[in-house]
Amino acid sequence: MMRPLMAALGAAVLSTPPAVAADIDVGRQRATQCSSCHGVNGRSPVPNYPNLAGQNALYIQYALELYREEARTGGLAGLMHVQAAPLTDEDIANLAAYFGSLD
Amino acid sequence: MMRPLMAALGAAVLSTPPAVAADIDVGRQRATQCSSCHGVNGRSPVPNYPNLAGQNALYIQYALELYREEARTGGLAGLMHVQAAPLTDEDIANLAAYFGSLD
Repeated sequence: MMRPLMAALGAAVLSTPPAVAADIDVGRQRATQCSSCHGVNGRSPVPNYPNLAGQNALYIQYALELYREEARTGGLAGLMHVQAAPLTDEDIANLAAYFGSLD
Repeated sequence: MMRPLMAALGAAVLSTPPAVAADIDVGRQRATQCSSCHGVNGRSPVPNYPNLAGQNALYIQYALELYREEARTGGLAGLMHVQAAPLTDEDIANLAAYFGSLD
């Protein structure tokens, strides 16, 4: 059950939903650039990098937006900014849907 | 197969291993404070919050250290700093081992 405060915090950071429907198949193709660090099928071969398989799609969207805008800093955020900078809102929605769909 | 550059980047951010062996059972008990946002068993009930179940333990350790030191900013990092600030290295190692052990 979602607590009211938590729900409010969650709602406060939700991005505007993308204008386009997310396409898992397009996301899968776009994700080839992610695979060297996050693994084929979202299971990272690097122990201190996150797995993305099965992650909440909305969290992935949110994180990619933060990286793209350089709003998330610390650790290897600079590396992720370089990756995310060229992504459109549609790319992000597709990538989030793809990784969220994985087991 | 791990690429040399990726391996070097990975190694560069690895924390010093904790002085104590991680204890999954102790981590499970410590994780009760995490469950309202990240879910019982690490499956978040909030769609824009990350699942932690099955995440790489070393990534969880690394993220908690960043939050604790306020080295990660952006989004809801301030909220996570409050949660992580009281954690010892041992707490973090135990939490990371616990969430990493979940399916």
